Amino acid sequence: MPVVRVALGERSYPIHIGAGLLDEAALYAPLVGGRAVGIVSDANVAPLYGARLARALAAAGARTATVLVEAGEQAKCWQNVDRVVDALLGARIGRDGALVALGGGVVGDLAGFAAAVYQRGIPYVQVPTTLLAQVDSSVGGKTAINHARGKNMIGAFHQPLAVIADVAALETLPERELRAGLAEVIKHALILDADFTVWLEANVERLLARERDALAHAVARCCELKAGVVAADERESGLRAILNFGHTFGHAIETGTGYGAWLHGEAVAAGMAIAAELSHRMGTLSADELARIRRLIERAGLPVAGPVLPADRYLELMQVDKKAVGGRLRFVLLEGIGRARPREDVPESLVLALLRELAPRAGT
Amino acid sequence: MPVVRVALGERSYPIHIGAGLLDEAALYAPLVGGRAVGIVSDANVAPLYGARLARALAAAGARTATVLVEAGEQAKCWQNVDRVVDALLGARIGRDGALVALGGGVVGDLAGFAAAVYQRGIPYVQVPTTLLAQVDSSVGGKTAINHARGKNMIGAFHQPLAVIADVAALETLPERELRAGLAEVIKHALILDADFTVWLEANVERLLARERDALAHAVARCCELKAGVVAADERESGLRAILNFGHTFGHAIETGTGYGAWLHGEAVAAGMAIAAELSHRMGTLSADELARIRRLIERAGLPVAGPVLPADRYLELMQVDKKAVGGRLRFVLLEGIGRARPREDVPESLVLALLRELAPRAGT
Repeated sequence: MPVVRVALGERSYPIHIGAGLLDEAALYAPLVGGRAVGIVSDANVAPLYGARLARALAAAGARTATVLVEAGEQAKCWQNVDRVVDALLGARIGRDGALVALGGGVVGDLAGFAAAVYQRGIPYVQVPTTLLAQVDSSVGGKTAINHARGKNMIGAFHQPLAVIADVAALETLPERELRAGLAEVIKHALILDADFTVWLEANVERLLARERDALAHAVARCCELKAGVVAADERESGLRAILNFGHTFGHAIETGTGYGAWLHGEAVAAGMAIAAELSHRMGTLSADELARIRRLIERAGLPVAGPVLPADRYLELMQVDKKAVGGRLRFVLLEGIGRARPREDVPESLVLALLRELAPRAGT
Repeated sequence: MPVVRVALGERSYPIHIGAGLLDEAALYAPLVGGRAVGIVSDANVAPLYGARLARALAAAGARTATVLVEAGEQAKCWQNVDRVVDALLGARIGRDGALVALGGGVVGDLAGFAAAVYQRGIPYVQVPTTLLAQVDSSVGGKTAINHARGKNMIGAFHQPLAVIADVAALETLPERELRAGLAEVIKHALILDADFTVWLEANVERLLARERDALAHAVARCCELKAGVVAADERESGLRAILNFGHTFGHAIETGTGYGAWLHGEAVAAGMAIAAELSHRMGTLSADELARIRRLIERAGLPVAGPVLPADRYLELMQVDKKAVGGRLRFVLLEGIGRARPREDVPESLVLALLRELAPRAGT
């Protein structure tokens, strides 16, 4: 069973990856034994895995209380943070308590943020049940909720005590969510690992078929890659920004279409295709590489173009995005496959021209 | 002009104390020069000092936008965090921006928490304008908002870039607030400094008369004492708990009477008198010392008894307080004047008996 370590000094933690880990009490005992624990999950995941997790936590010596939220991006709201706080106080879970996040990226972001601010911070454990959460959002300590003006505008850096990624849980994942998760797998490969990109080109069908070995390999490799970046730049002051490859466009797509219409991974997939095109036009990515990237995204069943929005609206949405530094647009561009760099020198005219071509019907 | 340094490694910061500092542009320039800055203040303080601060920040090279909240404890709510976030986004203040908190403890706690969670954390500067904020709440990085079930239940540890304590601003402070601030001055003396307690016994009238020299001395000494505690225990895992002397009862009083009926300092004053009485009954404080403490609190014009609430209600409120560890009650007791220790071994029966004597009319 692979264990990936995120090296962050006293905030270091392990990521356990394997099939059937979700209810291994022995994994939880050292983390939450003797504690009172709030489980945060959603209406889709809790019926599938909630009881198994609660039994494992009880066997590990934890007293538990569960808070359920609705499924979907709109659950990342203040009202749900308040509900978690209310439930913890109601169950007399204090500063010595902990949270366990059981679900996808939304539940992880919400529960992680609630853990960050409840009584000024309590520990939490991530038990991601979607591919997106296993390969990306559960690792690295970024937690957040959304604001009417933009995604993830309110949040905290709060590292988990551990991540327990059960690849068997991916068997119940809807097809569309599996594909959305592959977007982040592809992202890690494109920005950091040319060899892993080649592996993905050879194995994308095995991942879509949910072969456990292939899934475990992909999850472990993504976690290794991300752990390396996070260890070098915990609070996103530099290097970590490359993890946002495809996200400047991606967030604009999500916000512009209303949260939930596009899955995060779908928006990131389209965003990566656009960012790759931009990299090509800036002269840092060859036409062959661009074509390989588009083909890989398409083979994963993901979009390579965003929805039709006026180009000016795209620009406006991107400028509100928190990756904009002092109002300037920041893009992560590829410098070949397996290497990425944040750039602040992309001419707005070039971006605008590209967006107009991509959304010809918008007429702006 | 005294400068007290809070030693927290890379999170270290200075506290500037003196008359007329509030609009010294030279103090702000190294902190926020070239940044976009949100000023958070309240309806009482902004008319007095808002324009002066904004001019100083402009002279220091900052672009500013102001967010006003209502005065009073009820401003420490999620809706106001959301308003701050909304204003920052509306003014296109990004992750490279900053906040300045101009006001008392409420504004400092609210703005500090908003800074902690806005885009996962931006820097902030505390400009405290009440005695309570200057001697206590602006120092140490504890930020929070309230929850219906209890005070400060949602918050973060987020250290400011600097604290700028202008004692001239205390001249416009309502008498009742000045006295409430003295409660925290007395607290610092009682738990940490027998000599400072003697100084207070000799100078409490000068403080009430708002003599600048006396105020500057008291503010500086409190900041030194608190900075020492915070440096030793930033996240309140041990020593820092002694700063909660009087607060277990105090918070129960505030919650039990509804936020705002009692000022925080008034509740802490009564809480300190009760905690001193408890210390005496536990055998760690002499009758003479108890009498000196009660006299000092009374000379500052502060209450030495809480409101009439059923003893059981007090107990219930104290158990919800986040200083309760795993449901057990924790009190900070004095071991003579100038020394304090958190205790978890105070018999509930003793607490109950004391509360019944203090609230004889409650009849429980």
